[in-house]
Amino acid sequence: MRALARAISQAEAGHGAELIRRLFDRTGNAITIGLTGPPGVGKSTLSSALVRAARSLGKRVGVVSVDPSSPFSHGALLGDRIRLTEHFTDRDVFIRSMASRGHLGGLAGATADAVLLMDAFGMDVIIIETVGVGQSEIEIAELAQTTIVALQPGSGDSIQVLKAGILEVADIFVINKADHPMANQLKREIRSMMAMLEFGGWVPEVVMTQALLGEGIEELWNAIQKHVAYLRETGEMNVKRSQAFRHQVRQLARGRLERRLEEELSAEMSEDIDPYEAAARVLRVFGFDGGVAETEPEQIRPAPQRATVKGL
Amino acid sequence: MRALARAISQAEAGHGAELIRRLFDRTGNAITIGLTGPPGVGKSTLSSALVRAARSLGKRVGVVSVDPSSPFSHGALLGDRIRLTEHFTDRDVFIRSMASRGHLGGLAGATADAVLLMDAFGMDVIIIETVGVGQSEIEIAELAQTTIVALQPGSGDSIQVLKAGILEVADIFVINKADHPMANQLKREIRSMMAMLEFGGWVPEVVMTQALLGEGIEELWNAIQKHVAYLRETGEMNVKRSQAFRHQVRQLARGRLERRLEEELSAEMSEDIDPYEAAARVLRVFGFDGGVAETEPEQIRPAPQRATVKGL
Repeated sequence: MRALARAISQAEAGHGAELIRRLFDRTGNAITIGLTGPPGVGKSTLSSALVRAARSLGKRVGVVSVDPSSPFSHGALLGDRIRLTEHFTDRDVFIRSMASRGHLGGLAGATADAVLLMDAFGMDVIIIETVGVGQSEIEIAELAQTTIVALQPGSGDSIQVLKAGILEVADIFVINKADHPMANQLKREIRSMMAMLEFGGWVPEVVMTQALLGEGIEELWNAIQKHVAYLRETGEMNVKRSQAFRHQVRQLARGRLERRLEEELSAEMSEDIDPYEAAARVLRVFGFDGGVAETEPEQIRPAPQRATVKGL
Repeated sequence: MRALARAISQAEAGHGAELIRRLFDRTGNAITIGLTGPPGVGKSTLSSALVRAARSLGKRVGVVSVDPSSPFSHGALLGDRIRLTEHFTDRDVFIRSMASRGHLGGLAGATADAVLLMDAFGMDVIIIETVGVGQSEIEIAELAQTTIVALQPGSGDSIQVLKAGILEVADIFVINKADHPMANQLKREIRSMMAMLEFGGWVPEVVMTQALLGEGIEELWNAIQKHVAYLRETGEMNVKRSQAFRHQVRQLARGRLERRLEEELSAEMSEDIDPYEAAARVLRVFGFDGGVAETEPEQIRPAPQRATVKGL
């Protein structure tokens, strides 16, 4: 465990390349679970309950906590970590909160490294916990095979879900604090939003939990198992793995490109020329000969999407 | 006005390069104001009131409405546009909501084009209105010379401001709905957050408004004028212009690089290699010879920052 901690610290500081290279052959065995949701929904309590469920089956568990929105990652996560204290003395549970500062691939890059390292070090189940329900959280969830979106009754979360395009990426919805009077209404809202979509294969499960009391956790664990079985049977697991791999490659390459781009932009720049001409000049450094819009523009990278809106 | 509308549509669809090239000489005269804040704070009412203030001085005004978070830009903005109806028949007010779909530089790229075009077509004041208080809104605010952050009392907004690093980019804070019982508390919170910073030159103004009643709008307009005068006297206006220029170049170059990157990523990729090696191979296309981490990693692009936290 100490070696794993050191390895992740090294990766986090941007020096993980050599380690990952050497250990990559040993990866690919873990189940990775993404858990995302707004602040206060009880993600850490859910994580903790899932750790307990996995431990009761003898699994070794890794938890990566990520807060992309907070500039004070460590401080903000302290509270979360406290909620996970019960597992601190368990030698088969490894908990880690992530900072992004030094990593070329940003937070997603550092997280991807941590997941690979936990996998290589023999964790059977890896939970990637991110705060928030926005594009960046979805992106981090791309590293996971099973994406859980936790929502809170009576908070207007369902609208956020719809807006952020999360409906299309969630494999399992958890309505935590299910004793709340609005819990059933939230469930109905999710169901009716789902009714607007056509699902190609997996249809998201909606699970009600009271994580603090451990209620619904067995159902949640079963839903995860069911999703993993679905992924394996249909061959979608390979798609997921390949997606996570590409995502990591993307983050790494993007980090390098961005840094080089900033170098070019900080160089003296003539402002007699227009921005399109200036961009074309910058792009020559990257081997582009033509202008900026040399081919027809199209949307660059569609949000990850498995379901399609009916009638569109 | 019809020609301007057509020009912006063309730019929005990704065909603005030629137009911008030809018209670039005519830009540089407008005052650009960024207005950002969470949903419901009353941005459109504030915009509308600012339009009225500028019109009463005989200025021609352009408004660009941007909603980066919404996948349904047009629908979501309909409500906003309704609030601006009073200006629809005014031939010297041009209102436009932005979609990002076709533009190589994303929403920021399309917005930058629209601002340049409005400027070239003779708008004296251009308001760039964005929803939300996060990094992407700050980014769009980089196009503006004066950035206004609107906040709502009793909404916990001040915490969001701190977290999102907005304190460092706001030139003017507006506390709208100033009749709210928590308005003075919010003002105190902003003041005490400001006390933690050291400002090099301009110290953000805090203005209380009730935009619906037109109250405080004169003070807000005066604060804008004061900031613009400050920028001109200190020469910071040129810094601002250069920043906006670089930002647009960045968005354009980034769009092109991203698209090329996705092409490479969607090509057949051997998964026998580790992600670092795969990234190094992808990067060769962009003229990089070494590995991903050939130089020491560092933070790629610091958030725009004018003030520094004391003691850090």
